[in-house]
Amino acid sequence: MPKNPARAIRIALLGCGNVGTALVGLLVNPSRREQLRERSGLEFELVGIAVGDTSKERSDDPWFPGHLLTGDAAGLVARDDVDLVVELMGGLEPAGSLIEAALRAGKPVVTANKALLAERGIELSALAEANGVDLEFEAAVAGAIPVIRTLRESLAGEALTRVMGIVNGTTNYLLSTMASEGREYADVLLEAQSLGLAERDPTADVEGFDAAAKAAILAGLAFGCVVDPASVHREGITTVSSVDIAFAKRFGYSIKLLAIAERVGENAISVRVHPALVPLSHPLALVAGAYNAVFLEGEALGSLMLYGQGAGGVPTASAVLGDVIDASNHLLEGDCSSAPRRAASLEALPIQEMRSAFYLSVDADDRPGVLASVAAVFGEHRISISSMEQQGLGEEARLVFVTHEASEADMAATLGALEELDVVRSVPGVIRVVGHGEGI
Amino acid sequence: MPKNPARAIRIALLGCGNVGTALVGLLVNPSRREQLRERSGLEFELVGIAVGDTSKERSDDPWFPGHLLTGDAAGLVARDDVDLVVELMGGLEPAGSLIEAALRAGKPVVTANKALLAERGIELSALAEANGVDLEFEAAVAGAIPVIRTLRESLAGEALTRVMGIVNGTTNYLLSTMASEGREYADVLLEAQSLGLAERDPTADVEGFDAAAKAAILAGLAFGCVVDPASVHREGITTVSSVDIAFAKRFGYSIKLLAIAERVGENAISVRVHPALVPLSHPLALVAGAYNAVFLEGEALGSLMLYGQGAGGVPTASAVLGDVIDASNHLLEGDCSSAPRRAASLEALPIQEMRSAFYLSVDADDRPGVLASVAAVFGEHRISISSMEQQGLGEEARLVFVTHEASEADMAATLGALEELDVVRSVPGVIRVVGHGEGI
Repeated sequence: MPKNPARAIRIALLGCGNVGTALVGLLVNPSRREQLRERSGLEFELVGIAVGDTSKERSDDPWFPGHLLTGDAAGLVARDDVDLVVELMGGLEPAGSLIEAALRAGKPVVTANKALLAERGIELSALAEANGVDLEFEAAVAGAIPVIRTLRESLAGEALTRVMGIVNGTTNYLLSTMASEGREYADVLLEAQSLGLAERDPTADVEGFDAAAKAAILAGLAFGCVVDPASVHREGITTVSSVDIAFAKRFGYSIKLLAIAERVGENAISVRVHPALVPLSHPLALVAGAYNAVFLEGEALGSLMLYGQGAGGVPTASAVLGDVIDASNHLLEGDCSSAPRRAASLEALPIQEMRSAFYLSVDADDRPGVLASVAAVFGEHRISISSMEQQGLGEEARLVFVTHEASEADMAATLGALEELDVVRSVPGVIRVVGHGEGI
Repeated sequence: MPKNPARAIRIALLGCGNVGTALVGLLVNPSRREQLRERSGLEFELVGIAVGDTSKERSDDPWFPGHLLTGDAAGLVARDDVDLVVELMGGLEPAGSLIEAALRAGKPVVTANKALLAERGIELSALAEANGVDLEFEAAVAGAIPVIRTLRESLAGEALTRVMGIVNGTTNYLLSTMASEGREYADVLLEAQSLGLAERDPTADVEGFDAAAKAAILAGLAFGCVVDPASVHREGITTVSSVDIAFAKRFGYSIKLLAIAERVGENAISVRVHPALVPLSHPLALVAGAYNAVFLEGEALGSLMLYGQGAGGVPTASAVLGDVIDASNHLLEGDCSSAPRRAASLEALPIQEMRSAFYLSVDADDRPGVLASVAAVFGEHRISISSMEQQGLGEEARLVFVTHEASEADMAATLGALEELDVVRSVPGVIRVVGHGEGI
């Protein structure tokens, strides 16, 4: 080393959607290119862009290098004049095989592929280390927010206790809009779809699959353990109503979809995605619109929040570029980042073993004695009430409770018993409450 | 390499105040030690602690290694069994000479010494690179917040436009307390001093010297240029009154002491520290108490905020430990971080050449025509008013203005002319207003 005495790093790009096109701009646009050389001390050359359809128009920009497009991704990765591979295709395959091939050929890889990393991140990181090159993936979680580097490097010695993130911009946009405009989920979703802010099939976002993949990656880095994304407890936002949001606000909370990875005692962790009531005094409560944020708590650290643009082609490409520079410096120095360490195995607790405070909304008949019979059910299950509000709606009443901390099992039993009460019509809202971090 | 086949890194600690004692705890406390080994994959051995007074009691903890204390810092740095030096003495000398000696001996250095880095950071970074070892200093700016690593690595390719930080916890505590309790500066300062939250001589904090050193370091990293901390325009918080804070709030702003490093056009930057009105909708406005935060804006990045504990022994030691692990990994791999790149030289503009909106509070006689004559002065100097409020105080009236953007020169001329008006008694408050970042 250096392989390449002029310090020019030759890059193959796999995939050219929003983020890929933005990255091409950052690498190729003449004014940016000069700034990039000045700041990084490196010279980059884009030598090929693998795409599914080479005839599709990618950009109007005159500097877009259409002549670099190719349909042969595997051939591009294998080319001798490729030093580093950026994978922005997404999905498990062929991305996984292409990344493997690159790493085995001693080429560092930068990727934003959260689904692949959640499934195979540990294995691919080990393969990278075995081949003495980097696998970097800052953009896979929370776009431009440097949470991966912070966890891998800055907090390498920290005894982390909890990581909570708003890591899905679509759901945060939907919840924020419901809150600020008092509108219902279905209505706001339709509008977001028409504005291109939500997918035509929004399942991956609104049912929490995207957040669960990110939670698995964050948990793996925070606690040094392997977390199967399919094992992450996952609840989406489709049942959150504007009534819940309004009541939560009156009680002093905002409702957010959180990805949580938490240390539980000495030997266990909990990794989960669900809507949560977050106290309005907590910094996460203020993260609105499509912004993302990750709130980290540790024994020495105290609390730390990273807040910024979690999606969008250009901000995400900015994070990819940071990784490209880091991996390039390592490549030129003949060095690589260590794969994240594995800790003594930690058990991932099922959500049934966790404890939490709960918000409940109960629709009941509006007649004397209803509150007493509902309250009795809580008492029978050892759940104490922190605050309560009752609202008449003609013949019906809505009772809204925030409980003190209770076990999931007691809460499930309470719910079952409430639903069997004659006076209770339904329990449409049950949402966990997240407590304050230390010092917040 | 590795020098040390067992991967045990032998550390010399220079200085053992709050942060040093906390670091000793993180390295030596048996339960933490095991966790640290597991997370980092490294073994650390503390081999000496240089202090001014070896007889002083440092800690009650039974595991505190009092036998490692020594008065001979230079001798400790030079010892053959020292792999890495942590400097937490502060001040320019002897810290500077000791760091130089360590780097020349091929020993990486981790420091939190903002004054030294602001004065000699560029030179010492170059010396480190020339000797193939790291000089790391995450804890020098904003304690546990990973802003240095974010600037050096994650944003190495980003075209940053502005960095704004609340980087002094003491002043943020004083301003937050004035705001929440409606009390005056002198009163809150006295209380903070009695609580140990402000120094007996608070000058370095309240006059902005501490923030100016940090601003110089941030500007150097953000824009790749050398900034003399003495050249940073600096205004403290001693003239901010509770009246200003109350008016600012009514206009929709919070008052914060900001360290700002900003790109101005193609070839210039501005680096300055002053109180500023920050819109309540801006995330920096919500950073209260002793918390720190740094808000970064860039062309591709959009905006990013890092928020957390800016001081305190244990959180700061957490940042030091992250650096120790990083530098140790590099040492074992025979590698080092690159010194920050120098950009084409950028001119640092004096504050007189900047533009800004302004908040002004004017004490005047309460008689007809006063507003007209005051307003005329603004008009004569081409300054337009964005909002205005008038409050009668017996014979006196207080007129409060927020202007549209104006040049510093026009504002200075306006102030001079206002003070010459017969009806104006004084202009006690003049504070710049900071605009919204993109997308916030």
